Amino acid sequence: MSPEGFGTIERKTIFEGQVVRLYVDRVELPNGHEAEREVIEHSGAVGVVALDQNGWIYLVKQYRHAAGEELLEIPAGKLSSGEKPLDCGKRELEEEIGFQAFDWLELASFYTSPGFTNEMLYLYLGSKLRKTQANPDEDEFLEVVHLPMGKALEMVAKNEIKDSKSVAGIALATIYLKHQYQPRKTRRMAEK
Amino acid sequence: MSPEGFGTIERKTIFEGQVVRLYVDRVELPNGHEAEREVIEHSGAVGVVALDQNGWIYLVKQYRHAAGEELLEIPAGKLSSGEKPLDCGKRELEEEIGFQAFDWLELASFYTSPGFTNEMLYLYLGSKLRKTQANPDEDEFLEVVHLPMGKALEMVAKNEIKDSKSVAGIALATIYLKHQYQPRKTRRMAEK
Repeated sequence: MSPEGFGTIERKTIFEGQVVRLYVDRVELPNGHEAEREVIEHSGAVGVVALDQNGWIYLVKQYRHAAGEELLEIPAGKLSSGEKPLDCGKRELEEEIGFQAFDWLELASFYTSPGFTNEMLYLYLGSKLRKTQANPDEDEFLEVVHLPMGKALEMVAKNEIKDSKSVAGIALATIYLKHQYQPRKTRRMAEK
Repeated sequence: MSPEGFGTIERKTIFEGQVVRLYVDRVELPNGHEAEREVIEHSGAVGVVALDQNGWIYLVKQYRHAAGEELLEIPAGKLSSGEKPLDCGKRELEEEIGFQAFDWLELASFYTSPGFTNEMLYLYLGSKLRKTQANPDEDEFLEVVHLPMGKALEMVAKNEIKDSKSVAGIALATIYLKHQYQPRKTRRMAEK
């Protein structure tokens, strides 16, 4: 617990699923009051802005059951147990769109919705792409879409691209390409 | 159901809380397989990039129990029942940092994490600020932080600002201020 934080008095486990675990915590607030907090635990996820030499990006279109609609998103996926975020980004990029990237930058990482979940999203920019073979999970149904970064940014403004990792990734990549954004660490590494 | 979508065969209600509702849905995939989907229903939320005449923004620092740490975020809050997103943004801006904004732009809206939740985040840019009186909820403990937009963008790169609405909001506002981003609708309205 942070000194500014809340002490957890009691935790009730409500549900332990494949993707989320749900707890209801009884916490003590700094003013001595008690309150309940609903907490969704999630293993974290990775998204990749895949940028080709012409400044175009690759997106995937898929139906999202929780959202109830088809969305156009950057390639992404959940972290497997023990998997490092960069390894997950490389895996998802190849599985979903069939490319390897030879340059990787860490654009940002963020809680998707810190009011109720600890889900952390690691956002990479992958460039110097080489075509391999897409290999989606058996139960994934994806369509790959290739378009200029400027067009993707317009689609954010028009609400045609509307998920947090894609909006943040397209916006940060746009600033980066204009040399106005310095990602925290630069890792330039070749695929083995 | 979208033609590309999954048919829901059965929905089990696991939990109905103050912030989230959790369902486990049995769905039919396009290939005829059946699968389970864990769905978190959420009423949606609003975040505001509050920009003053010098290009500085206002952030709030608060402990987030689900994240387990103190975060620096743009002012934000959950939609109340029946509340319009813009009204929620105006309310939260005044409650959390004690300002009204006279110019409002819709920067974007997005699903925070469409793999498991329908939570929609409406992101505004509020400018032409006038000081009123902060009025946080009794059980909110906030510290207001005021800093240049460029500094905020650096803090994204350094992972010192790390939640989706703040990262997306700061990145989009940066592009907007450089006249390289056209929000979908512009609503310029005075407070009543």
